Amino acid sequence: MLAAVIHGARDVRVQERPEPALRTPHDAVVRVVAACVCGSDLWPYRGVTPTHAPHPIGHEMVGVVEALGDQVTSAQVGDFVILPFSLSCGQCQACRAGFPAVCDVVTFFGSTDRDGHPVDGAQGERVRVPLAQHSLFPVGQSEEEVEARGLVPHLLALADVMSTGMHAATAARVEPGDVVAVVGDGAVGLSGVIAARLRGAGRVIAMSRHADRAALARGFGATDVVAERGDDAPGAIRALLEGDLADAALECVGTKESMAQALSVVRGGGRVGFVGVPNGGPELPMRELFARNLTVGGGMASARRYMEELLPLVLSGQITPGDVFDLTLPLSEIPQAYAAMDERRATKVLVRP
Amino acid sequence: MLAAVIHGARDVRVQERPEPALRTPHDAVVRVVAACVCGSDLWPYRGVTPTHAPHPIGHEMVGVVEALGDQVTSAQVGDFVILPFSLSCGQCQACRAGFPAVCDVVTFFGSTDRDGHPVDGAQGERVRVPLAQHSLFPVGQSEEEVEARGLVPHLLALADVMSTGMHAATAARVEPGDVVAVVGDGAVGLSGVIAARLRGAGRVIAMSRHADRAALARGFGATDVVAERGDDAPGAIRALLEGDLADAALECVGTKESMAQALSVVRGGGRVGFVGVPNGGPELPMRELFARNLTVGGGMASARRYMEELLPLVLSGQITPGDVFDLTLPLSEIPQAYAAMDERRATKVLVRP
Repeated sequence: MLAAVIHGARDVRVQERPEPALRTPHDAVVRVVAACVCGSDLWPYRGVTPTHAPHPIGHEMVGVVEALGDQVTSAQVGDFVILPFSLSCGQCQACRAGFPAVCDVVTFFGSTDRDGHPVDGAQGERVRVPLAQHSLFPVGQSEEEVEARGLVPHLLALADVMSTGMHAATAARVEPGDVVAVVGDGAVGLSGVIAARLRGAGRVIAMSRHADRAALARGFGATDVVAERGDDAPGAIRALLEGDLADAALECVGTKESMAQALSVVRGGGRVGFVGVPNGGPELPMRELFARNLTVGGGMASARRYMEELLPLVLSGQITPGDVFDLTLPLSEIPQAYAAMDERRATKVLVRP
Repeated sequence: MLAAVIHGARDVRVQERPEPALRTPHDAVVRVVAACVCGSDLWPYRGVTPTHAPHPIGHEMVGVVEALGDQVTSAQVGDFVILPFSLSCGQCQACRAGFPAVCDVVTFFGSTDRDGHPVDGAQGERVRVPLAQHSLFPVGQSEEEVEARGLVPHLLALADVMSTGMHAATAARVEPGDVVAVVGDGAVGLSGVIAARLRGAGRVIAMSRHADRAALARGFGATDVVAERGDDAPGAIRALLEGDLADAALECVGTKESMAQALSVVRGGGRVGFVGVPNGGPELPMRELFARNLTVGGGMASARRYMEELLPLVLSGQITPGDVFDLTLPLSEIPQAYAAMDERRATKVLVRP
C-alpha cells in the first residue's frame, strides 16, 4: 500500500509500505478514508525535532474497519470509525479516570506498540490499530451516508483538533458565563472557540491577527477579536471588558511566549488550559501562579473521551469543526500538503488516499 | 498598647506601640482576643527573608470590635469577629470572583494600607483594620459565649490555616470519592486533611513522619499515613492503592521538593492544589505537566471566602480545626512562642494578649 514516510527535514515522501495485517487478537485493520496534517507534524518537518530514521507519519484519520482481532468486540467489519490520535487500553487508572491520553500503554501512530511491533501512520491507505477494543470509535453511520452528508471533515476533526480544543476548555474549567480568551488561531485555537461556547462561555475573545482565521473564529462563536499581542494584549482586553480581564484562557500554541500571554490575560484566580505541545519546555513561574492565584492544567488531549460528547453534535450539525480544513489534497501530493501548512497558505490540510 | 515587633532574625520583642485609632471612614479598631504564630512568620524569624526595618508582626486573630468608621456597616461595636489574614475590598474583579486574597488593594497586617498608613500586626492588644466593610467577619456570638464554649482556637483557625487547607482542597478540585494525598503535616497540612474530607474525599493519605501529627491527622479524618518520602513515596502509595496513585494532592509546604513530591503521587490527569508560599520560587516542569496531564493551582488562600462555609461547621462542632494549637502562651512570652515553633516543639502556638 502507499503511505507517507518522513525521512528528514522537509522530506516527506509517499512510498510503498507493507500491507497491514492483524498481529494480535487485540488489533484491527482500518482502511483510511481521510487523514490530515497536524501542526505538530510540522516540528519534524521543519527539523525542530530531529528524525533519526525514516518512519511513517500522521495520526489523524477516519476510515472503515476491514479486519478485527478475536478480542475486539467494540466494532464490526464495515463500520465507519474515528480513531483518536492516541490509542489506549481503557482499563488502567488513567483511562478509568477519563485520561486515556496518558494511558499506561498509550500507543501512537507511526511509532511502535507495547509489543514492539511497528504501527502505521495515519497518512496512508491502511493502518493496523493496536488496542482496538477501546480505540475504535464507530460513528453509527455508513461510509456512504457520511460521504453523502459531507461529514468527513467534521468527523476527522474529532480525531484530534476539536477534541484538543475541548481539552483546553475542560482543563481551563470553562464555566457558563465565563469570559474566555483563546491564545492561538490555528486549527486547535479555532476549535477551542467552539469548545468554549459549548461549555457555556458568555464571551469568547479570539486573539488573532489573520483576517481569515478571525472570521472563522467569529463563525465558530467568538464574540470579540483582539489583534494585540505581548504586553499590549492585557490592556486591549481590559478595554473590551470595562477594566476586567478574562476568567480563563486557552493556550493553544505551545511556546513560552504563548503561555506567558495566556497567564497575562486572566484575572486573579483565573485558569489556563494548555494543549500546545510545550516544544522547548518552558517552565511555569510558581511565584506568579501563587501571587495571582492561577490554575494551570492541560496536556495531550484524551480525544477518545471527548468524541462521545462531540459526535452527536457533529451528526446533528450543531458544530462544524471540519471548517478548519481549507485545503484538500490527494495522498500523492502529501509534500504539497506539508508545504502549504508550513508556509501558512493553509490552516489545515485534509488528505485523501 | 503592647504588640510584637520583629527586629531581625530570632529577635521578636513585645513593646509599646501607638494605640490604634480610626484613620478613615472605612476602618475599624478591634481588640485582639487571641492571635497566633504562622509557619510563614518563621521565614523572617529564621532570617530566610530579611527584615530591613523593625515592624509589627502577626496576621491571624479573633477579637471584639471597639470602634467603626462611618462607612462600615457589616459589623457592630461589641461584635466578636474573625479577621481574614488578608484584607480586601470586596468589589474588584478578583473579590467578585471569590478570590479576595488577590484583591486589587489587598492589605496585610504589619504592613501599610492603600493610603500609605501603617497597619498593626495581629500579635498585639489591638489593631486598626482597613477595608473593614468586607474584612470584618462577625461570628454571631458574644465574646462570653465563644469563650464559654471553648471556640476561640477553632474560630482563630479560620483566620488562616483552616481556610488555607480549604483552598488547597478547592484548588485541587477534590471531588467526592477521591483519593487525596496531603504533603506536609504542619497546621496547614492537618487542616488540609479536614478540608479534603469536607469535600468528600473517600480516602485521605497524610504524608507524615511525626507520630503526634499523624495521630492528629487521623483524628481529622485521614484514613492512611505514609511515612515514605521522595522517590519512595509513590511506591508506598501504590502499595496502599493496589497499584494506583492519588487522584489529587495538597501541597502544604512550599518548597521545590514538596511540589515535586505532590506531582509524583498523583495519577495521570491528577490535580495538585498548592498553598505553601513558594519560598525560593521553584518553577513547574511544563513538560511533566503536559506528559502526565496534570493540573496545578493555588496560591494564597481567600480566607474571607471560606469562612462563610466553615463558620457553621465550627459552631456546630462538626470540625475542630483549633486542635492544631498545642501550646498557648501570653503575648508577653512571644519570643518563646516563636522559639517553640522554630524548634518544632509546637505545631502551632496560640497567643493571648
